[in-house]
Amino acid sequence: MSNRESIETERASKKLQATFFNLRSNKAFELFVVCIIIFSAVSIGVRTYELPPLLIDVVGLLDVLITLIFLFEIIVRFVGEPDKRRFFHSAWNVFDSLIVIVSLIPIEDSELALIGRLVRIFRVLRMVSIIPELRMLLNSLAKALPQLGYVALMMFIIFYIYAAVGSTFFAEINPGLWGDIAVSLLTLFRVMTFEDWTDVMYETMEVYRFSWVFYLTFIFFTAFAFLNMIIGIVVNVLEEEHQRERDKKAAASGEPTLHDLQQQLVELKQIMESRR
Amino acid sequence: MSNRESIETERASKKLQATFFNLRSNKAFELFVVCIIIFSAVSIGVRTYELPPLLIDVVGLLDVLITLIFLFEIIVRFVGEPDKRRFFHSAWNVFDSLIVIVSLIPIEDSELALIGRLVRIFRVLRMVSIIPELRMLLNSLAKALPQLGYVALMMFIIFYIYAAVGSTFFAEINPGLWGDIAVSLLTLFRVMTFEDWTDVMYETMEVYRFSWVFYLTFIFFTAFAFLNMIIGIVVNVLEEEHQRERDKKAAASGEPTLHDLQQQLVELKQIMESRR
Amino acid sequence: MSNRESIETERASKKLQATFFNLRSNKAFELFVVCIIIFSAVSIGVRTYELPPLLIDVVGLLDVLITLIFLFEIIVRFVGEPDKRRFFHSAWNVFDSLIVIVSLIPIEDSELALIGRLVRIFRVLRMVSIIPELRMLLNSLAKALPQLGYVALMMFIIFYIYAAVGSTFFAEINPGLWGDIAVSLLTLFRVMTFEDWTDVMYETMEVYRFSWVFYLTFIFFTAFAFLNMIIGIVVNVLEEEHQRERDKKAAASGEPTLHDLQQQLVELKQIMESRR
Amino acid sequence: MSNRESIETERASKKLQATFFNLRSNKAFELFVVCIIIFSAVSIGVRTYELPPLLIDVVGLLDVLITLIFLFEIIVRFVGEPDKRRFFHSAWNVFDSLIVIVSLIPIEDSELALIGRLVRIFRVLRMVSIIPELRMLLNSLAKALPQLGYVALMMFIIFYIYAAVGSTFFAEINPGLWGDIAVSLLTLFRVMTFEDWTDVMYETMEVYRFSWVFYLTFIFFTAFAFLNMIIGIVVNVLEEEHQRERDKKAAASGEPTLHDLQQQLVELKQIMESRR
Repeated sequence: MSNRESIETERASKKLQATFFNLRSNKAFELFVVCIIIFSAVSIGVRTYELPPLLIDVVGLLDVLITLIFLFEIIVRFVGEPDKRRFFHSAWNVFDSLIVIVSLIPIEDSELALIGRLVRIFRVLRMVSIIPELRMLLNSLAKALPQLGYVALMMFIIFYIYAAVGSTFFAEINPGLWGDIAVSLLTLFRVMTFEDWTDVMYETMEVYRFSWVFYLTFIFFTAFAFLNMIIGIVVNVLEEEHQRERDKKAAASGEPTLHDLQQQLVELKQIMESRR
Repeated sequence: MSNRESIETERASKKLQATFFNLRSNKAFELFVVCIIIFSAVSIGVRTYELPPLLIDVVGLLDVLITLIFLFEIIVRFVGEPDKRRFFHSAWNVFDSLIVIVSLIPIEDSELALIGRLVRIFRVLRMVSIIPELRMLLNSLAKALPQLGYVALMMFIIFYIYAAVGSTFFAEINPGLWGDIAVSLLTLFRVMTFEDWTDVMYETMEVYRFSWVFYLTFIFFTAFAFLNMIIGIVVNVLEEEHQRERDKKAAASGEPTLHDLQQQLVELKQIMESRR
Repeated sequence: MSNRESIETERASKKLQATFFNLRSNKAFELFVVCIIIFSAVSIGVRTYELPPLLIDVVGLLDVLITLIFLFEIIVRFVGEPDKRRFFHSAWNVFDSLIVIVSLIPIEDSELALIGRLVRIFRVLRMVSIIPELRMLLNSLAKALPQLGYVALMMFIIFYIYAAVGSTFFAEINPGLWGDIAVSLLTLFRVMTFEDWTDVMYETMEVYRFSWVFYLTFIFFTAFAFLNMIIGIVVNVLEEEHQRERDKKAAASGEPTLHDLQQQLVELKQIMESRR
Repeated sequence: MSNRESIETERASKKLQATFFNLRSNKAFELFVVCIIIFSAVSIGVRTYELPPLLIDVVGLLDVLITLIFLFEIIVRFVGEPDKRRFFHSAWNVFDSLIVIVSLIPIEDSELALIGRLVRIFRVLRMVSIIPELRMLLNSLAKALPQLGYVALMMFIIFYIYAAVGSTFFAEINPGLWGDIAVSLLTLFRVMTFEDWTDVMYETMEVYRFSWVFYLTFIFFTAFAFLNMIIGIVVNVLEEEHQRERDKKAAASGEPTLHDLQQQLVELKQIMESRR
């Protein structure tokens, strides 16, 4: 291959990249992809009803079409990316690519067919990767996670202790609810949601009269104190973000800080003292 | 018609408009309309009890009377409006007019009679269009809607994915709960409200031992994380409004801003420098 | 009666008033009354158990003793009050006096005996009138009431409309739940608390397939939107009070306001200009 | 013992103390203890399943090992403490020591064996005493307690009055729910959590038609008004802490206060006046 040819192919590839970059940023293209995702979601919903054989074929055909459009879109986004290495740094791009690749594998086996259907369902999540407002929502939730982490650990310790005590004392009363520690944890989660928790309590109160102490303290520790803390943390995170935005606005509007004022006062004093 | 007559009718119509405008703004008239609405609401309530025939006739007569008073009131408000075109710009005026017009249509047919009763029930909503505080409450709720919109979309995506997974795996276990995607969505809404959700779970756990993961993750995603976000948003909207009110008060009370202080310092410096 | 005697009795009465005022403000006396209230509460609790006849007599005797102590305490507070007219301006004093007076009436009749027992139960509320922190708690709740009033009215309008619609369509399906508007209101309150609401819904869905719209919109309007508004309002009220306290502290600590600073700048400028 | 020997042992003991102090502050040592606690928690969980005899022996052996490691760790921390008296001032140290000492007592008796198992379960709580973030979480909860105390007292008064009224009127309808005041309190707690509260209500409504007033007012007083107050208080406590942190940051960043600015203005004026 001559040098001139190589330059020409490079120039052509750059032109293609620019075209695809524009296509990718195009609002109409974005809207088209959103429509395809909605259409894909509807086709998943339709499949859960009993359909005549003809319609099943049509839905199957449409499914192939959707997969091809998604493949085309991911290629557009990959080619349109100026820095190829950065493309896979975004978790959402990796997620999108995986969904498309797995959809491409033809599956006949009944076991794998189920996984194929699951992958098709998760295509709906592509909505989050396309719409920026939803991505922001998830990000603000992710910011609250480290603060919630220790509350969750605390909750788990309380759950674990109560589950251990519960399966020690109540295992013989109702093995279905307190048989081992895993089942006890599930039962305690049920008690926390107040779901028929009195049935569970009345049953154990027939053997241990004071077992209501167990349930009431558990409900106090989890449902009241800690859920409130979670609310408090989430409210705080949201407030801080609002505060940051307001601070940005204040900074942008040229409102001086107290520090600026002090600076000016110091200058004034220097002027006065220099004139003495 | 002579010119003089035309001027005279115009003058008369203007006088009428002014009279009706005053009537409309009259507190006693407003109170009278509120009383009629309450009376109309009570008559709807009374109809749900079994009544002797005589009382049914009385209630029917009163209903005609209420309709006529409402018609009169809407005419007063329309004639009293200085700018006739602006009258139908208010959604509440359109709503009020529609309710009155539909009430006027005489209905004998049993099918339409039901609609007639529904329209009579919606008359109670006229309370909101009359009392300004209730209108304000609805407005502040409407302000929070765009922020809640994306949270609702996110919630719907989660619901849809879980419903698709649920109807894929559990449809044969209990078609009444997981038969198709619409029924699955309803079942998931029930799980979110914690209403006998363990019954739903224990049923599927007999076939799929680890299906509790499905329910627990769903409850975490919806009931906890997102409901808290909604609370957070509502609290924020309310706070912002309070903040705005406080800012208004501060501005009205003549409290200087940091900017004003800086301005004065700059002036001081200029005076000093000019004297040098 | 001579003038001297009258002066002497007045002096004696003033001395008595001062003594009782001191007694009333005495911490030990307050603690003694709190103990008597607790004791009175315990004696009410004990009566709900089956007791041997001897103990019933003892409890009856103690009850007379408690009534006498309460009578003595109310007389102390009344005599100790410097301005007798102000005594009955406090709603709590009126409440306390009423409770004591009704307790004094001897009741044999079985009908009235029940009322007598109720009055004895309400004695526990005297705890609120004695402990200032509890009175403050109630006051801060009372401050939030006017703001909550319109939300409550809005809620009631929604409840009323849904109850009217419900008893129009569902009355024949289950008269026990939707028979008339009063019963429908109770059923809707139950739906709002999520208590077995799906049982209510599935029943009507058998006749009207789309009646889930009725329940879901109702739950959205009441449980979500409005409960959150209530939380928002309460949080705001509490915050405002905290803000007020902080402002008070700031004012007390001599921290200058922006206004003070501006005042000083103006003075500075005047000095400079006067020297020109 | 000669003087020199005494000095030498003292020097040796100081060296040991310093070594153990370093070991105690060592991150790797902390991580090792956390792992042992997790391992101890897992061994408790495993015991709730049915195990082959060999595994039971292994778990028993491991339990002795864990106890010994905990004993070693507590000795390290005690010897490493520079001021021995301060060691038992920390409630967590006392708790840790008690857990280890009780674990050391060999128990054969079946009655005491149960207590032994309980003590082993409470070892999981040592996680809180080891991880500082969890200790901080508990501390911030403890700070909210005094504010919550009066709300809790208020709640208890409401509960007590309603329980007394309930057991007076409903005791004969269902002694299992309203027999005496203790049972009534439990039933009311159940009503507050909305757990099958309509079943309780419908039962009493058959005898007293207006008993729904009892339940609805109770739900309003407890579930709505007071739970919201608790949320409000918790949110406030969290906010105050955030505020304090922000204030600290502001102070550390050298941002001048309004007071500083005023001070400078006063100085300026003095300079000007001295020059007059």
